[in-house]
Amino acid sequence: MSWIDVTYHLRGSPEDAEARARAIAVEQSIEMPPEAVDDPFVLGEILGRVVAVESLGGGLHAIRILLSAATVGGDAGQLLNMLFGNSSLHEDLTLAEIAVPPDLRAALGDGPQLGLDGLRRRVGAQARALTCSALKPQGLSPEGLARLAEAFALGGIDYVKDDHGLATQAYSPFPQRVAACAAAMRRATARTGHPTRYVPSLSGSLDAVREQLRIIKEEGLDTAMVAPAILGLANIQQLRRDYPEIALLAHPSLAGAARIDPACLTTLWRLAGIDAVIFPNHGGRFGYSEETCRRIADAAIAPTPGLAAIAPVPAGGMSVARVPEMLDFYGRDVMLLIGGNLLAEGDRLSDATAAFVATVHQHSQAQAPAETHA
Amino acid sequence: MSWIDVTYHLRGSPEDAEARARAIAVEQSIEMPPEAVDDPFVLGEILGRVVAVESLGGGLHAIRILLSAATVGGDAGQLLNMLFGNSSLHEDLTLAEIAVPPDLRAALGDGPQLGLDGLRRRVGAQARALTCSALKPQGLSPEGLARLAEAFALGGIDYVKDDHGLATQAYSPFPQRVAACAAAMRRATARTGHPTRYVPSLSGSLDAVREQLRIIKEEGLDTAMVAPAILGLANIQQLRRDYPEIALLAHPSLAGAARIDPACLTTLWRLAGIDAVIFPNHGGRFGYSEETCRRIADAAIAPTPGLAAIAPVPAGGMSVARVPEMLDFYGRDVMLLIGGNLLAEGDRLSDATAAFVATVHQHSQAQAPAETHA
Repeated sequence: MSWIDVTYHLRGSPEDAEARARAIAVEQSIEMPPEAVDDPFVLGEILGRVVAVESLGGGLHAIRILLSAATVGGDAGQLLNMLFGNSSLHEDLTLAEIAVPPDLRAALGDGPQLGLDGLRRRVGAQARALTCSALKPQGLSPEGLARLAEAFALGGIDYVKDDHGLATQAYSPFPQRVAACAAAMRRATARTGHPTRYVPSLSGSLDAVREQLRIIKEEGLDTAMVAPAILGLANIQQLRRDYPEIALLAHPSLAGAARIDPACLTTLWRLAGIDAVIFPNHGGRFGYSEETCRRIADAAIAPTPGLAAIAPVPAGGMSVARVPEMLDFYGRDVMLLIGGNLLAEGDRLSDATAAFVATVHQHSQAQAPAETHA
Repeated sequence: MSWIDVTYHLRGSPEDAEARARAIAVEQSIEMPPEAVDDPFVLGEILGRVVAVESLGGGLHAIRILLSAATVGGDAGQLLNMLFGNSSLHEDLTLAEIAVPPDLRAALGDGPQLGLDGLRRRVGAQARALTCSALKPQGLSPEGLARLAEAFALGGIDYVKDDHGLATQAYSPFPQRVAACAAAMRRATARTGHPTRYVPSLSGSLDAVREQLRIIKEEGLDTAMVAPAILGLANIQQLRRDYPEIALLAHPSLAGAARIDPACLTTLWRLAGIDAVIFPNHGGRFGYSEETCRRIADAAIAPTPGLAAIAPVPAGGMSVARVPEMLDFYGRDVMLLIGGNLLAEGDRLSDATAAFVATVHQHSQAQAPAETHA
């Protein structure tokens, strides 16, 4: 097989960087002293290779290493294990960037099945950004959440997702919630003529998730939300293979804890086949910079042979007032997710949603046509 | 239901800490402005509550919050989601400590099924520390790995695990590797009379893992290794339920514990039912302090009603020469894992292993009798 080109960022003293680079190359491959290995295949084809160690200034080094793609075996979880499994335990190290060779990309699967284009096509939104909101707070009954879902859909929004905290709790068991919200969606879309999608949140073991998808399909739904850092990326890969018609939106829950650059993580999740990536927008509740957000969006939509573009979904403390700014920043290849700001409108939810939707439609019309993404 | 007592550590300016505490309590519960919520159940039983904000000095604050156990629904993945899902995205925040109420602990399951006591009983090691090594490097064929396994077992070691990088790669597919190593183990243990256990590494989706466990059981094995941060903690929970007779050793791959305190993570994994926790020992390849290691070991064995003690497994750059020091530090409630240091002995592997084992036996005999762990 071939080699994965991996860049780590090391915060440390310059004298240390070369030695740390060699240590990482060993740790992320044979994980034992090379001098104790005499097998030529292992030393030639498995042992990691340091390509470059470069100072980025400010005590930061970029360490570039080639890791053997043969160690991955086509498993996305194993890919994470070999890229950063043990090295994630170093507080001064970040997994910054990866370039996966074509044979490994193919071994990981067919990638996103709907992607940005599919999510657009489903709601008839070829030439504009997409709109999304969230059902909150958890603690509401299925009927309470369904009322919100209906109000959002009556405002013409494209996607309505569960709050990621909704799982299967006593106050809102999954089957009842999905049935109520799906029915609400059918009522609303019959009135508006706009095919708004309800997006349940999947949780629990893979077995539990399969049962949730059975219910989802029974209700005629075709979109779901997952948290790859909670469910496990190999399970995401499995879902992608087994449910090619279900669009998967990825939520970043727990993804912040592992010191993987968010744009790099977006690439990894796109490889595993998710169709959209939710992330904290700059200027919201979280501290992501504009640059980080741009890089996440780029990682989502960068044209890549054999890998469909996915929808970047900036979220977290967004407001309708910021929509023009957000669309200027991201362009139209984006799904804007506004939750609390709309829910705060209480009884005016549908009107506030309609205003959100109208702003997106009008602003997108003023922008240049979107490029087609393979 | 009841409340989970959660402590976060915040690196930030004192003026900010109270506001951040309130924000975290909201983020990890209703995730929207409380003023936009009028449902009394949500505000009374779901919304997180700040208990205390305390300066620890050096710009560090301890923030203590009560989170509603009702949001967890008995799902270990959902527990992670509600404890730290979105808040993991804050670079200045760490999940430091949790105390789970008894009803939630029961809802999460029966906990470890073998635990430290079961791992001891299986190898007849009631009054001493346990010994373990690892099959490396990956890239070796099944036969090559089996030769190492046999050599370790002939040295009288208790547990021989796969290197966590071994999954199902072309050079060592899981079925062939397990068959070869299991056969080697049978040969060796027939000669030594010591019931050494081979511990395959599980990887891939939950479906793939079930197939691996089928093979494992077919080979008469009863122990396996998992990486909860890669497989997903809800899937660990599922395995625990479905395979009560399989001892599960947890590997810290990707656990990147800088922002979930390693002892807190140990508690979470113990709740999900793993029987042993592998972690980087102080003074080895990783930067964990003595204090951190002690806290991990304490979290593993602390007597807890309804939750069996699990084996702490310090690893990572350990050596036979350090065994007395390690046993003085951890006592006998530990499984010492030495990999590279033994493998570096090449042809002398069995003798070196026998020396490791003898050192542990002799040193343990000199220590006080172990306490019994419920």
